[in-house]
Amino acid sequence: MCKNTLREDRKLTVERRKFLLGAAAAGVGGAAAAASSFPRPAIAQDRREWRMVTTWPANFPGLGTGANLLGQYISTASEGRLTVSVYGAGEIVPAFEAMDAVQNGTVEMGHGAPYYWKGKEDASQYLAAVPFGMSAQEMNSWYQYGGGQELADRVYERMNTKFFPSGNTGTQMGGWFNVEMNTLEDYNGLKMRIPGLGGEVVAAAGGTVVNLPGGEILPALQSGAIDATEWVGPYNDLAFGLYQVAQYYYYPGWHEPGTVLDNFINLDAWNDLPDDLKAIVEQANRAVNQMVLSEFVARNNQALRTLIDEHGVELRRFPDELLQGLGALAGQVITDLASADPLSAEVLQSMAAFRSTAIQWANISELAFASARALDYQWVQL
Amino acid sequence: MCKNTLREDRKLTVERRKFLLGAAAAGVGGAAAAASSFPRPAIAQDRREWRMVTTWPANFPGLGTGANLLGQYISTASEGRLTVSVYGAGEIVPAFEAMDAVQNGTVEMGHGAPYYWKGKEDASQYLAAVPFGMSAQEMNSWYQYGGGQELADRVYERMNTKFFPSGNTGTQMGGWFNVEMNTLEDYNGLKMRIPGLGGEVVAAAGGTVVNLPGGEILPALQSGAIDATEWVGPYNDLAFGLYQVAQYYYYPGWHEPGTVLDNFINLDAWNDLPDDLKAIVEQANRAVNQMVLSEFVARNNQALRTLIDEHGVELRRFPDELLQGLGALAGQVITDLASADPLSAEVLQSMAAFRSTAIQWANISELAFASARALDYQWVQL
Repeated sequence: MCKNTLREDRKLTVERRKFLLGAAAAGVGGAAAAASSFPRPAIAQDRREWRMVTTWPANFPGLGTGANLLGQYISTASEGRLTVSVYGAGEIVPAFEAMDAVQNGTVEMGHGAPYYWKGKEDASQYLAAVPFGMSAQEMNSWYQYGGGQELADRVYERMNTKFFPSGNTGTQMGGWFNVEMNTLEDYNGLKMRIPGLGGEVVAAAGGTVVNLPGGEILPALQSGAIDATEWVGPYNDLAFGLYQVAQYYYYPGWHEPGTVLDNFINLDAWNDLPDDLKAIVEQANRAVNQMVLSEFVARNNQALRTLIDEHGVELRRFPDELLQGLGALAGQVITDLASADPLSAEVLQSMAAFRSTAIQWANISELAFASARALDYQWVQL
Repeated sequence: MCKNTLREDRKLTVERRKFLLGAAAAGVGGAAAAASSFPRPAIAQDRREWRMVTTWPANFPGLGTGANLLGQYISTASEGRLTVSVYGAGEIVPAFEAMDAVQNGTVEMGHGAPYYWKGKEDASQYLAAVPFGMSAQEMNSWYQYGGGQELADRVYERMNTKFFPSGNTGTQMGGWFNVEMNTLEDYNGLKMRIPGLGGEVVAAAGGTVVNLPGGEILPALQSGAIDATEWVGPYNDLAFGLYQVAQYYYYPGWHEPGTVLDNFINLDAWNDLPDDLKAIVEQANRAVNQMVLSEFVARNNQALRTLIDEHGVELRRFPDELLQGLGALAGQVITDLASADPLSAEVLQSMAAFRSTAIQWANISELAFASARALDYQWVQL
């Protein structure tokens, strides 16, 4: 099963690449050709000019804008001693060649999400999003005080890069469905577009995981070629228009509970930085990490209200029985996959240990507060 | 009621000052006398040497260490063009004179929590923690994408300072109790140490809000002079030893769901900074904002396990009926208090509007995920 699903997943990745290039793809040929003639980074009078390639279309809401913020933060804080110009997918290299371009020094820096580098280092997918894993806040805490940064550094060093967490989408949605999901058996034969480790779990539940470029998702859902698709959350989903062709909007996003974005830097370029510029890059990443999540929280709040109030979207919660089954299946599937790679297993074990105490605390802090707040009473009147 | 409780609260603040000076208080006289003879800030060869006073005892876990991190981040990223030395409570001025010292330019920068400045600007307490308000993540999002920063800037400008959010404790605990809390009526006559807006709500519920310096809390709880006290969360509470004298550890901390720390900078000193140093200070604060929360999450996780496994602490959840009553009471009390000050009312309205959509999103994202994750299934085996 593992071998097949792994192979399946590679196909997914290829398809996802095709989509994410999106509108920018038209320009790829020209930009890629031009890339080889780009000059090497300039270091004149101790001024560095770096280029950052991204896996996002230029200015893509929340993600591309996060990358823009990172470039801007570094450039401003360093007073131009380190200027970072940001390039959308396809402007210098295609989206999923961003890591290659950074590894081989074509550019100095990249922005994307760790699970995109699965083909190079399988452990990277555990650094991004693990089904039934941890929230954004817990992932940050694991990275910063739970040994996550050190493990991620080891994974990224094998790709000749330095790693920083650089944004988080927060808990995503479960997806858009045209069938009711009541029990785990409802995944049997379900045709769903869902990439990554979440897709592995759906496949293990008997689902048919379908690969579709982004532009084909909406018509496929409309025609019945697929029964369901996941995307991101209300902010991005509203813009994508999926509410027009799907009956139910299910939650929660058990497959991506707090997806981490990454900033990866060519190791030679990183090591060549003086300490103050290293500090600026590190702090800019931490700032961006928070700003991206803050933007998603704010915009998801607003977009959800629009989806419900203006488009009459029907929200559905996955039933507990179904979630419980998926949780157990997720445990098996990700343990099996990790067992094929020692570093993946090490990352997963560290994360699982952190998660086991994080759950206790989350249950009596954020979860208990959110439950209390959701009770029926009149708070401050608007 | 409001006038009385406000007066009561001033007493609380004074008592809280006495405690928070803590061990450092012994040195206050000498340090305060010395403060007046400190030289004005040095600006030589475009190198600034700033001092940051804090409301925390030096190196106080999570809070003082957060202030240390801020000083260190700014100093390193600026390569010493802006060096920030950190002083614990009482080292230059007593804890709650930190704002005075920054306002009048004795020092350039301070670190504390907005609700400590209630006597100067009442609106500041809404910027820190509001009963049944918002989580850390939602507060960040409100500050960064919901208009909160702009409102806070207006509040702090009236105190001649520039404001940055600079850390968050996350959701605190409800507190340590020697009586069972079943209904709102159980607050009638309850003697509890609980400061701030939470104390106002407890007083409105018929409780006797008691003022005690930190060192007297443990014996008072032991002797029955008080029935209950709130503190922070497992990390700080474990060190404080309250489990030795209290029967029940109640959650959630409805009164401080995500308490914001503040960095306040003398306006002249801030305006005098070049753009790159301004950017460094801003990004360092965002980085610290995240690091402090990450530390609390990681340490609370661990400490909670120790409290339960090693000290046999009995966790109790406030019943829904009681929470619902407190929620309604909180709505009345904070609305009444805010109505006395137009800027407080404006801050509260902005926050309440943001919160109304944030609740919808939290319920189907983080809350729903945490509930799903807490179901009974075997995940990854440790």
